Formats: sequence, C-alpha cells, structure tokens
Amino acid sequence: MNLNELYEELSLLLADKKMALVKAKLTDLLPADIADFFEQISRENVLLVFRMLPKDLANEVFAFLEPDKQQIIIDAITDKELSVIVEELYIDDAVDMLEELPASVVKRVLKNAAPDTRKLINQFLNYPENSAGSIMTAEFVNLRPDMTVGDAISHIRKTGNDRETVYTCYVVTKSRELLGVCTVKDLLMAPDDKPVSEVMEDTEIIYVNTSTDQEEVALLFSKYGFLALPVVDNEKRLVGIVTVDDAIEVLEDEVTEDIEKMAAILPSEKSYLKTGIFETWKNRIPWLLLLMISATFTGAIISSFEAKLVAFPALTAFIPMLMDTGGNAGGQSSVTIIRSLAVGDVNLSDWFKIFLKELRVSILCGLTLGVCNFAKIMLVDRLIFKQSEITLTVALVISLTLLIAVIAAKIVGSCLPLMAKKVKLDPAVMASPFITTIVDAVALVAYFKIASTFLKI
Amino acid sequence: MNLNELYEELSLLLADKKMALVKAKLTDLLPADIADFFEQISRENVLLVFRMLPKDLANEVFAFLEPDKQQIIIDAITDKELSVIVEELYIDDAVDMLEELPASVVKRVLKNAAPDTRKLINQFLNYPENSAGSIMTAEFVNLRPDMTVGDAISHIRKTGNDRETVYTCYVVTKSRELLGVCTVKDLLMAPDDKPVSEVMEDTEIIYVNTSTDQEEVALLFSKYGFLALPVVDNEKRLVGIVTVDDAIEVLEDEVTEDIEKMAAILPSEKSYLKTGIFETWKNRIPWLLLLMISATFTGAIISSFEAKLVAFPALTAFIPMLMDTGGNAGGQSSVTIIRSLAVGDVNLSDWFKIFLKELRVSILCGLTLGVCNFAKIMLVDRLIFKQSEITLTVALVISLTLLIAVIAAKIVGSCLPLMAKKVKLDPAVMASPFITTIVDAVALVAYFKIASTFLKI
Repeated sequence: MNLNELYEELSLLLADKKMALVKAKLTDLLPADIADFFEQISRENVLLVFRMLPKDLANEVFAFLEPDKQQIIIDAITDKELSVIVEELYIDDAVDMLEELPASVVKRVLKNAAPDTRKLINQFLNYPENSAGSIMTAEFVNLRPDMTVGDAISHIRKTGNDRETVYTCYVVTKSRELLGVCTVKDLLMAPDDKPVSEVMEDTEIIYVNTSTDQEEVALLFSKYGFLALPVVDNEKRLVGIVTVDDAIEVLEDEVTEDIEKMAAILPSEKSYLKTGIFETWKNRIPWLLLLMISATFTGAIISSFEAKLVAFPALTAFIPMLMDTGGNAGGQSSVTIIRSLAVGDVNLSDWFKIFLKELRVSILCGLTLGVCNFAKIMLVDRLIFKQSEITLTVALVISLTLLIAVIAAKIVGSCLPLMAKKVKLDPAVMASPFITTIVDAVALVAYFKIASTFLKI
Repeated sequence: MNLNELYEELSLLLADKKMALVKAKLTDLLPADIADFFEQISRENVLLVFRMLPKDLANEVFAFLEPDKQQIIIDAITDKELSVIVEELYIDDAVDMLEELPASVVKRVLKNAAPDTRKLINQFLNYPENSAGSIMTAEFVNLRPDMTVGDAISHIRKTGNDRETVYTCYVVTKSRELLGVCTVKDLLMAPDDKPVSEVMEDTEIIYVNTSTDQEEVALLFSKYGFLALPVVDNEKRLVGIVTVDDAIEVLEDEVTEDIEKMAAILPSEKSYLKTGIFETWKNRIPWLLLLMISATFTGAIISSFEAKLVAFPALTAFIPMLMDTGGNAGGQSSVTIIRSLAVGDVNLSDWFKIFLKELRVSILCGLTLGVCNFAKIMLVDRLIFKQSEITLTVALVISLTLLIAVIAAKIVGSCLPLMAKKVKLDPAVMASPFITTIVDAVALVAYFKIASTFLKI
C-alpha cells in the first residue's frame, strides 16, 4: 500500500476531471488518509472533492482536516450544511478547530451550532490552553451504580453511537459525582444480573482536574496504559474524558516542543513546511541573538588574555577543540537530564544522586579525553608535524584544561536543568546552546590560567 | 493523591514490620503503582511484599516490574509458582522480560511454561529486535465472518477474559487469513442477527508485517488513532496484534533514542539512574572522542593562519562568537529537519522545498545577526571601550563572516539529515555536535579569507 502513489494517481484523475473514478477510489480510503489527500490539492479542488464525498464520510474527514482546509469549506457552505457538520464533530475536535480559526469564522460556526452544543463549546473554549479541559471530550457513556450489567450493556448499545469511546464507562451519582470506572470488557465478562456497582473499579480511580496540564495527563496514559481518563471539575463532578488518541497527540507535540527548545528554537504550533519564512525566522532569531551577545563575553575573556596569545600563538589553535569538546560534554548531560525529567525517570529529589553520578562520569570522560589528547599531541603534532612550539608542558596544559572543562561542563549541564525545574522554568531551555556559552567561558579562563602558571607567560 | 508520600509511609510501616497495614494499603493501589513501590525497597522486602499480595494482583504486578526485580522473584519461587506466573503473563510481557534476563533464568522460565506457551514464546523471541513481531501479543479475539453479531458478542463474553484487548476483533478465514476488522463498538451498535461479515471493515485494513519496524508501527497509531493493529506473517495470516499501550511505549523509547543520538550519546536501554557509571561513560565517550579528534582540523585551520592572527590579534576574540553562532544556527536547522522526518511532516521528496526555505530563513537570520553584530561592535567595542584596533573594516569583516557562517550552517544543518536518510542512516546522528565541527571549519576559513582580503594582512 503506497499512499503517495495513490495520491499522485488521484491528482491526475482530478486534473482529467474523472470525478467518478476519484470518488470511487477515495471512498475506499480511511478518513485520515482522505484528509491527507486534501493537503495536496488546490483550493477549488478542496471544495469539489469534499462535496463529492458521501455525507457521513465527509463529516468524518472534516474532523481530520487542517484548520486552513476546514476554513475553505466553512466559507463555502451554507449555514444549514455548517450546522450539520458542527453537530457531527466531537466537542474536542470542534474546539481544536475553533482555536485555530479567525474570530469571524468562529462566530459563524457558533451561530449555527445547536444551543446545547454552543454552550458546551463555549465552556470548553474557556479552559486554559494545554489543560486537560482543553483536550477532553464531552461524549462519553454514563452509568448509574444501581444498573445491572445487562441494563448497562443495552444502555451502551442504545446511546453509544455518538460517543467518542464506549470502552470505558463512568459510574456517576445523580449530581454527576464520579463513583467508579467500568470497562466494557468488565461488563462483558460479568453475568447480566450483577449490579454495575459490583463490577466497577472504585477504590483507586485515577482522574485529573480540568486545569491539570496536558503533559501530566499524557504521562498518566503512558504509565498506566489507559484508553481514557476521566476529567472532573473542582466539585469532583465528571465533566469530560480524555481519550488515548488525544494523549498520543499531546505526547508527540510536547516532545517536538521540548526538542525545539533544546535546539534554541521558540516552539511553533505548525508543522515545518506549513510555517512561513518569516515565522520560522521569528522562532529562530531570538535565541541566536541572545546567544550571540552572550558569546561576546567569551570574546572579552580572549581579549583580556591577548598578550599571552601573542606571546604564545600556538595556544590559539586549541581553543576550538577545547570549546567544542566542553560544549558537547555539557550537552550530553543536560539533554539526558532534561529527557529523564520529562519522562519522570528522575525528579528533583534525586539531585544529589545525579550530581555524584555526573561528577564520576565526567572524571572518567575527562581523563579518557585528556589522555587521548595528550597522546595525540605528542605523537601527531610533535613527532610527525615537528611543531617545535608544542612542548611536553603545552600538551599537559591542554590536556589538563580539557579535564577541567569536561568536568565543569557535565556539572553545569546536569545542574542547570534541575535548577530550572526547581524555579518552575521549563528544563528544556537549559540545553546545549545555552550551556555551551557558559562552558566556553569556564574552559577559556581555565585554559589561560593554567597556561600562565605552567608556561610562565 | 501523592504517591511518593504514600511510598514513604509504606517503607516506614515495612521497617516496623506492620505487615497487615502494608498489605491493606498496597492492595488499594493500581498494579503499575505497586510495581513502582518495589523499585524503592530492598531485595529481601521485594520477596516479602510480593508473597503478601493476593495471587491475582501479584501476577498483574509482576508484569509491571523491572527485569532485575522480576529476577529476584523468579530466583526465589518454586517451579510450580513460576509456571503459574508465566501462564498468566501476556506473551508480549513474557517476551519483554526474557529478553532482559540472563540465559540461565530464561531456561528455567521456559522449562516451566506449558508446551504451547513455550512454543509461542520461542517464536516471539525469534522476531528481530524492534520489529512489530517483537512487541506484538498473541492474545486477541478471533471471529468468523459467518458468525452473527449475537454469536460474536457471546463468543467475546466467553473467551475474552485472558485476551489483552477485546475491543478490536479480527475476522479470519479457517487458515487464519485476515479478512476484516470489527470493533466491539461496531458489534454493540449492530442488531444481534446481522452477520459479522456485514459489520466488519474490510476495504482498507491497515496491518503490518512481523518484520515491520516498531517505529513505523507506532506512527500508524498516532496517525489513525487505533487501539490495536493486526500483525500478519508473509502469507498474510494473522499472527498477533500490537496494542496502543505498547505503541505509546515505543513512541517514548524512540524519542528518547533520537534525543540521545542528537546529543551525541549512544542510546541506552535503561533509565538514567539505573545505568551504571561505566555504562554511561561507554555511551558518551565515543562521540566525544570522535568530535574531539575532528575539532583538531579546526585547530589546523587556525594554525595555518597563525601569522595573520599575530599581525592582527583582535581577530582572535571573535572566533568563539562566530563558531558558537554558526553551531547554534546549524543545530536549529538540523534538529528541525530530524524531528520533521521522524514524525513524517517532511520526507525525502521535499528536499528542494526544504533547501529553498532554509536558504531564505538563513539569509534573514544572517542579515539580522550581521546587522546587530555590526551595530554592537561599532557602539560597544569602538565607542564605549575605545578599542582602536576595531575599525569599520574589522566590523564589516566580522559581520560578513557571520552572514556566510549562518547561511552555510543552516544549509549544512538541513541537508545532512536528509542525506543520512537517503543512504538509510539514522538522521538523528546528524545533529548539532556533528554539524558544529563542519560549521566551525567553514566559518573559520571564511573568516580568515575575508580578513585577508579586506584588511590586507
């Protein structure tokens, strides 16, 4: 199955106006794949193809479309058609869409929603961005504790059609307080006459609040392997559920955000090819500027030791190696700690264990690099290239600086993310580019101090 | 609900030998949380606590334990107890465990498995590492196309208890060829007397082969929002399913691996605090050594221009800034492309779009940085610090070099991951540390050439 080939074939058929064939081929695809095809066609064809799809399929595909394509369609259809689409969307998909669309379009969508839907959408739009409330859905199955298993199953069979998931059902009181959780598997495995209250899990229900951060929600999914997680308000009343597919999306987005931060990029909501040139520039330039300015301090250190470099020019050639190795060593530690914090492998209380471990590893790495560097200088630079300036003392100065730079780099690299976490900043910001600047300064000062002492310059 | 506090309380109770209380509190927790508690207690207590748990719960907890804890328990229990545990494990959990345990323990586990289980485990152990076969499970629900919906539901109710998921059922021929997929929701929403063949989805079934890479499998989950995915052998016979919880684990592991590679670390299977000092050293030192050696080329470039630096010492002070800014600019591009490739936002055929985009963004970034740098040199270095050596020409040389370095960095940074992908290497290896070394060399050569020309040195 090669989708890209199929998309190309479809594009050709579309250009030839062979609509019946396009329709036949498209309706065989899954909604997510049809939505992908919309990304490849012109504005006019978006409308043409959308209108061609059977109504039910069109509604399903609509939920998978990117906001710009959704807007093209909304702008072209009648109020009545719009109202049907909005009612068919799950609340969380509708909210996702509305968060991206311009205000005028949002207004028209809300105007054409049924009053109940409109109220729900408005409520959902008010939850803070990246909270459980903003990713949850309101379409889930409610059960009562006094129902029998048989009742519960027939209730699901009657009402489950427009629920996002039927597999995890929630047992609530009349005032919608969460009493227990009950999977369809539990129900199916139990005899028909058993009451739901005896089948449900009620001792340790894992739930989140509407304001819980979405990343925390996603981590609960990866820890417990849930298919859905209940979301309650401050009175512990059930208001929605988060489903596992949304949790996966959050995990992927949060990872992309962390990786961008680690690479000194401001996180972007859009995918790479959809982000405009100026937007990409805007996301990348702030950190580049800041890091460029801070790198001038390193320059100032070199300036202040200029006399020594003039007296001993061979020292200059080793500056890049010392800086890069320090930066790489620090980057390894910071990235490891940032990721371990993100997946919950370490937390703040482990700081001393981390410090000890990084200290030991950095001594080992520093010694290895120092020894190899010493050997390389003595063998290659002195014996083979016969650089008379590079004496045994120079080799020692450089190797000793390397040891110190690697140790400093790994300590700084592992401590900064922990400190960031402590003061509730995002640890991901404390990654390689940031640490490089600090480590450069440390390495250069150490280098010149050691050189002054040993080489008496 | 604060689990860490609870764990501390439990540890104190354990120290005081208040076993009944420990048992009462533990049995209220979820299996994954009980397994977490095992990570915090001594070897002796692992056994003590494990034996204290009700049998069924103990078996569930066992699947969540880390391999070292599983081994402690296996080493201490009788063959009969072991055989019960193995039979209760889902095949994929058993295989995960056996892949981590020493050969002698594996032998004992297999000896105590029922012949059918043993055969299945052996078959699973033979699938290549990181393939769909290695993460799939064999416990799923099979349906026949001629069953009615009512038959299917009662079949699930009878046999579903020991299946890892009942929510996606697979319709197969007598020779186990995959005919269609049918969710429990589909079944529950259909009338009892409809045949399964009319309910199942059979036009575009998404399935994978046992040898499909696990990362590809996980991406299908994030694209389509599946709860389970069928795995077939080369004759298209259904041999297993991958469930969404395993897919999430794969996504997390692959991301950690990518992040480690991007930070020039060899990927490790274990979590940070579980990896020994020497192992951490072994994972970090190869790239550090390699990058240290390659950084000597940069040193060689500086050496070859040594005479110019002696003639014009002020140039040296700007080397770190030029190198760091180039490295950061290249890192931004490489990391963006690596992540976009990993999540499928771009692929190889987009190379020209990517090239054009990075070229434009790099010119914008380079100009911004060049102008800011020029202003900073003229205002700060010349006017405030009155450094007479820094003339208008020097400021121009440095800013021009910066522009060229940033453009080169972004082009190299975006092209190398694409080339790696082209020759089927992992793009993640082509991240910042690697690109830094290349960009350093480019920046330095440009710097000295431009300086020679404009400053006539």
